Amino acid sequence: MVTTHGSITETQAGTPIDLVAIREQVDAVLADFVGRKGTVGEGHWLAADLSGVLHDYLFAGGKRIRPVLCALGWYAAGGSAEGAPQLVRVAAALELFHAALLIHDDIIDNSETRRGRPTVHRVLAERAHDRPDPRGFGTGGAIVLGDLAMAWSDELLHSAEFSGPNWAAALAILHTMRTEVMYGQYLDLLTTGRPTGNLEHALEIIRYKTVSYTCERPLQIGAALAGASPEVQDALAAIARPLGEAFQLRDDLLGVYGDPAESGKSNLEDLRDGKHTVLLALALTQASPTQTAQLRALVGNPDLDERAASICRDILTASSARARVETMIRDRSALAQQSLDRAPFPPNVIQALHHISHSAVARTS
Amino acid sequence: MVTTHGSITETQAGTPIDLVAIREQVDAVLADFVGRKGTVGEGHWLAADLSGVLHDYLFAGGKRIRPVLCALGWYAAGGSAEGAPQLVRVAAALELFHAALLIHDDIIDNSETRRGRPTVHRVLAERAHDRPDPRGFGTGGAIVLGDLAMAWSDELLHSAEFSGPNWAAALAILHTMRTEVMYGQYLDLLTTGRPTGNLEHALEIIRYKTVSYTCERPLQIGAALAGASPEVQDALAAIARPLGEAFQLRDDLLGVYGDPAESGKSNLEDLRDGKHTVLLALALTQASPTQTAQLRALVGNPDLDERAASICRDILTASSARARVETMIRDRSALAQQSLDRAPFPPNVIQALHHISHSAVARTS
Repeated sequence: MVTTHGSITETQAGTPIDLVAIREQVDAVLADFVGRKGTVGEGHWLAADLSGVLHDYLFAGGKRIRPVLCALGWYAAGGSAEGAPQLVRVAAALELFHAALLIHDDIIDNSETRRGRPTVHRVLAERAHDRPDPRGFGTGGAIVLGDLAMAWSDELLHSAEFSGPNWAAALAILHTMRTEVMYGQYLDLLTTGRPTGNLEHALEIIRYKTVSYTCERPLQIGAALAGASPEVQDALAAIARPLGEAFQLRDDLLGVYGDPAESGKSNLEDLRDGKHTVLLALALTQASPTQTAQLRALVGNPDLDERAASICRDILTASSARARVETMIRDRSALAQQSLDRAPFPPNVIQALHHISHSAVARTS
Repeated sequence: MVTTHGSITETQAGTPIDLVAIREQVDAVLADFVGRKGTVGEGHWLAADLSGVLHDYLFAGGKRIRPVLCALGWYAAGGSAEGAPQLVRVAAALELFHAALLIHDDIIDNSETRRGRPTVHRVLAERAHDRPDPRGFGTGGAIVLGDLAMAWSDELLHSAEFSGPNWAAALAILHTMRTEVMYGQYLDLLTTGRPTGNLEHALEIIRYKTVSYTCERPLQIGAALAGASPEVQDALAAIARPLGEAFQLRDDLLGVYGDPAESGKSNLEDLRDGKHTVLLALALTQASPTQTAQLRALVGNPDLDERAASICRDILTASSARARVETMIRDRSALAQQSLDRAPFPPNVIQALHHISHSAVARTS
């Protein structure tokens, strides 16, 4: 549906959407917003301190996948280039919320690094090395900074100054998204450390944390802001589901078989933590009793080393779990592509989503 | 300023404001909102689980001071009784945000109990007693539940369906409030465990955590929603500052000299944690070198027992720190009363604020 904001002309719709430019615009908004927090208002030194840590974390890396999908949702629903600067603020707010979530997630997972750098709780603990309890300080400070980033994300969101029914529709989706991702986080926590053959739980975590939070809701928030019709919203959901599942299944494979130098992510941690992935659930259902016993003994053991990981990898491969996950990725990728070809979006949006869908599935990092 | 929502008649303004009824209305909104979260939507069992823990926490106690002040701000600015049901949803959202903050605060402070009951991270850890790391699970789960409560607080806030310039003004104050309380939390964390004679820092923590977060901003949010004039907002700030300081100074005294059976709060924990209070800052400035050395050795020691606490109490009293804090409370209380008598509010609002101001300062719990 083309909104009253303006219409996409044939030429515009034929021009490829510049995903790099969207990322740059989002980053500019984030740098400006967080930077201002450090220089204005009361509590100057505290503000500078906390916003500095947050800035470093935000700009250590990240694919900006949620902001990009939010922008593509906007264009999919016929959002105008004139309205894009407003939309970019909403997209940036999603990224800031994500940073908050990751800061807290790193505490929960006890992660030492993220995007190749020390996590926030570790940065703060290192600064507090002369205190009686540096770890406790790091954890406490990271809880507070995550909360602050969530509050700021909301402030950034409202600074876009959308209003009316499109805004109300987008907010409702945003509220659903936040609730879903927290359910996903909690389910993840409940199942981590004691993986089972329960495929349903593994898929439910993906549904909350990746399908909804990473793909479907960002797309739909952007679309809602452009006044999307139910048909457009349904088409976005039909693409987001297989795309999100394929994305996460690839991530799970990289978490075990990836090259850390390329992926920037440990290939031991998922096994060490005992993350309840589809890969592991399949192996625990399909492997021989001996292999299953071996997996149970090794996975979730905090002392798991490269040698143990290598045994696990062999079992995951031998049990066909790896191959089955690859098949699941291929099937879902194909489904996403088919849904995309039928979608009532401008051609340049379809093209961009094809590109993202392809690289999400074929990626090595 | 009386808004277009309606006007307070002479009779209404002469009728005492029923603070108990406000609390009951807020509680009804909270129970309904959190209850619904547990019964609808996808992820049924997770939702029921998490909303149940949150419900128990919300209804274990609490003075509902922020919602009550939000409602009084509304009436102070001439908000109508007809608009009150909308306002109560905003007031309830402030309480839900507060619950989220306390859930996280309890993790940061390693608190075992709150309002006489086990804290959320402890409740969750106890449930996970058969897991390899119950404490880690409790902490992680409480981080997630706090985040979820923050997200839900926002959803509840928007469900009030305010709009227009009054809403924009209220949101701006809300955003400031959230930022300020996080600065307060961080400053608290930075100074706890190594108290000094720095009175400025101790007062700055009060300014963020109590003056702004507990008094001034809740009052001003309510007032903004009723379209308050700058004069009304300034008058509210002039009352909130001395009131908030008096309230917190009383809290600090109760944290050391209070009767736990009456206050529901340990009278060892502040000393054991080494909380940087005005009371302690004054003592560290005023006590003799021997007493100062004793305080430094005892305060902030995790093993501090009743005997050590008793020595600290004697020093805090002998150094006149306790008496000076009592004087500060009296001065601030008088200032709040004076500002109140000059305030351009309806008489029943002035009466209610006098009542709150009196009980905040004279309380034993």
